[in-house]
Amino acid sequence: MDKDYFSIRRTIRKFKDEPVSGELMDSILEKAMRAPTCGNMQLYSVIETRDPEKKALLLPTHFNQPAAVGAPVLLTVCADFNRFTRWCRLNGADAAFDNFLSFMNAVEDAVIFAQQILSVAESEGLGVCWLGTTLFSARATSELLNLPELTVPVAGLAIGWPDEAPQQCERLALDTIRHRETYRQDSDEDIRRQFKVKEEFPMNSGFAAENGKENLAQVFAEVRYPRSLNEPLSEVFLKLLHDKRFL
Amino acid sequence: MDKDYFSIRRTIRKFKDEPVSGELMDSILEKAMRAPTCGNMQLYSVIETRDPEKKALLLPTHFNQPAAVGAPVLLTVCADFNRFTRWCRLNGADAAFDNFLSFMNAVEDAVIFAQQILSVAESEGLGVCWLGTTLFSARATSELLNLPELTVPVAGLAIGWPDEAPQQCERLALDTIRHRETYRQDSDEDIRRQFKVKEEFPMNSGFAAENGKENLAQVFAEVRYPRSLNEPLSEVFLKLLHDKRFL
Repeated sequence: MDKDYFSIRRTIRKFKDEPVSGELMDSILEKAMRAPTCGNMQLYSVIETRDPEKKALLLPTHFNQPAAVGAPVLLTVCADFNRFTRWCRLNGADAAFDNFLSFMNAVEDAVIFAQQILSVAESEGLGVCWLGTTLFSARATSELLNLPELTVPVAGLAIGWPDEAPQQCERLALDTIRHRETYRQDSDEDIRRQFKVKEEFPMNSGFAAENGKENLAQVFAEVRYPRSLNEPLSEVFLKLLHDKRFL
Repeated sequence: MDKDYFSIRRTIRKFKDEPVSGELMDSILEKAMRAPTCGNMQLYSVIETRDPEKKALLLPTHFNQPAAVGAPVLLTVCADFNRFTRWCRLNGADAAFDNFLSFMNAVEDAVIFAQQILSVAESEGLGVCWLGTTLFSARATSELLNLPELTVPVAGLAIGWPDEAPQQCERLALDTIRHRETYRQDSDEDIRRQFKVKEEFPMNSGFAAENGKENLAQVFAEVRYPRSLNEPLSEVFLKLLHDKRFL
């Protein structure tokens, strides 16, 4: 494992047509289970999808990104209070995990676990694409994977052997995201200065013109993550939490 | 960095009285910023608390756990759509991130970032205690750290040089948490069998008697994470999301 591993990492979206062995996946998941978990309750489950037909069914939930099905393994990590609640009830315990705080505990557990799977897999030389689309399609994913109550999908991971060596993209400066002692109130000028690194990054420079927008911020807010996507899907997500008994 | 790092990791709660240099923290945070982030929006902020008086103010938000203030650095990682929204508005973009889906995107970003900070710090030989209490005290933490709208604290990390070498605690078997292709419907007998590893773990064996309960499940559901904690704090959290304009 490269000592500089963490600083050189980047997302892989193109994978070789080579299998990832069951033994290797087991070893990765076993190691990732050592990540922190709320009260050692392990409030997560992971669905390992390898069947090409099953992956094809999940493709629309990932907005048809080729990366989602281009790797041999597609993992869906779920916030899961179902298993723990069942154990409590079988032991005559008054389990009260059908509420929003418990949902947040399970989401935190699931995202920690997913991120550790990513790190362990990358330390083995594998490439990973984190699929945030899982949150946007949580209801459809839940139905396709037969998720029970108190279980909600939160993250997808496509895992395979890299068939590309992309450059790293830009990041904001550390002093932008780090605050000391309390949250710093930035001026408008501060904000403009902080985002220059994004606006001036070569890969981003053509996006505004390509999308018929005046600037990069408009591409993000009006094309990639627009009101017409965020607002209806927020209602769908809240309805899902209600149906799963977390709300 | 130990090749087996991921498999040997465990939480550290006791720290040496030795500083963690600013250069080292900067390097850790810089590396952790290379973790995945939704659309490269970096929907997180981190508050670095070192002032002992400020740490003492935060101690009750961590249920007075000594680990929270026993390390030289206490980080609070926040889901933050404030900075990105301001940048969009300054560019005349119709930013619609005041909704639940956007909150979930930012939570995912923040937890990924926090987990990567933990991994990088541990790879440097530091010990870390993940403080899930941040979710239970999100309103108080938000007030103490002066968090603005569209910003919610989600995780705490106490970071310092280890002054203990604790054994690893138990985990469920991989076959319990991993499902193949779709979610497996376990029987009651399956669940009882899966949790035997927890009930029979030596460190857990005395908890029921110590807490005047019949079994370990009752300790979790009725003492550690009881209805009387989860249900009122769920209402407080939902109210916070409303006040922060995510609901």
